[in-house]
Amino acid sequence: MVDKPFPRGRVIFFVTRNLHKFNEARRLLINYGIATVMLRIKTREIQDDDIENIAETRALDAAGKTNLPVIVEDAGLFVEALEGFPGPYSSYIYRTIGNEGILKLLDKTENRNSQFRSIVAFCDPQNLEKRVRCFIGIVNGRIAEMVRGKSGFGFDPIFEPLKTPNKTFGDMTEDEKNKLSHRSQALRKFAEWYRSI
Amino acid sequence: MVDKPFPRGRVIFFVTRNLHKFNEARRLLINYGIATVMLRIKTREIQDDDIENIAETRALDAAGKTNLPVIVEDAGLFVEALEGFPGPYSSYIYRTIGNEGILKLLDKTENRNSQFRSIVAFCDPQNLEKRVRCFIGIVNGRIAEMVRGKSGFGFDPIFEPLKTPNKTFGDMTEDEKNKLSHRSQALRKFAEWYRSI
Repeated sequence: MVDKPFPRGRVIFFVTRNLHKFNEARRLLINYGIATVMLRIKTREIQDDDIENIAETRALDAAGKTNLPVIVEDAGLFVEALEGFPGPYSSYIYRTIGNEGILKLLDKTENRNSQFRSIVAFCDPQNLEKRVRCFIGIVNGRIAEMVRGKSGFGFDPIFEPLKTPNKTFGDMTEDEKNKLSHRSQALRKFAEWYRSI
Repeated sequence: MVDKPFPRGRVIFFVTRNLHKFNEARRLLINYGIATVMLRIKTREIQDDDIENIAETRALDAAGKTNLPVIVEDAGLFVEALEGFPGPYSSYIYRTIGNEGILKLLDKTENRNSQFRSIVAFCDPQNLEKRVRCFIGIVNGRIAEMVRGKSGFGFDPIFEPLKTPNKTFGDMTEDEKNKLSHRSQALRKFAEWYRSI
């Protein structure tokens, strides 16, 4: 008897320990007929200025450890006037200096251009090539002058997308944010591909 | 014929692409009869809040790739009022927001306590257990009110050791800095152990 490959296009294991991220993904993917299961395992995270390399390594590591078809998601806030900081280390930097730190660094700085980037990396251990497939989502915006709104998490309350001037991600309901966020874009690209294979 | 282990206590391969770090190490280790060779290879660097784990992983990776007895060195500046930031990501954060960024974040902050930590991790692939041995060096100090001095590199010009008030690492000659720096402490501990085995 040959092992059947995991029924694709129906279930995906999302490797994360962030319940906010998981819920955002679960509610979005169900619209594509994909059920999402949270997989709370620790993965090997490398230091790299490119979040795509970080996500790829994590996806390979998680698929190898679990033998399940997985996605991981890595995101970063890239501030133009700060040479891309906090970038790939957004999570650590949020935990230490937080939103107030970014505002302080941009004090009296006119250029507040910034970008939220998300990478969803997929790996299926049943696939003999064991290649990782990455999907990217990008939102251009600017750093607000102050913390605004209580929704979302991380740097959401200081990020104003260009499409919604004067409204940060923190000012939005989850539905509003999911319509345009970097993460939802990357997840939608993944979902369209995953249900097609 | 059995392979003889590498002649220890005489040569060590220092995995780094930072010429400043290499020269600091080379001049110090020669006093212990240890010749240092620069090994410019890329190692796998993980994300971890503990620099000891980062250094350990890099040492194992480098020894495995080269089959040579290696040391790696990882250092970080830990600022008390910033929850340890920039910590394990000091190198990236220096490249992006630099000394001016740290000064901005501490603007109007009274608590300027900080610590420079260095880990020297050693791995010898001839050792069957392939265990990594770590040596730590710590200097307590404070963040100066402005950038001072042109020696050293990285955050040196904003770090005043408690032992030399009003004098940053950037104000010191290499010899002065080597007498008390975190890196030199860790390297000396390594050297004393290495020449004893």
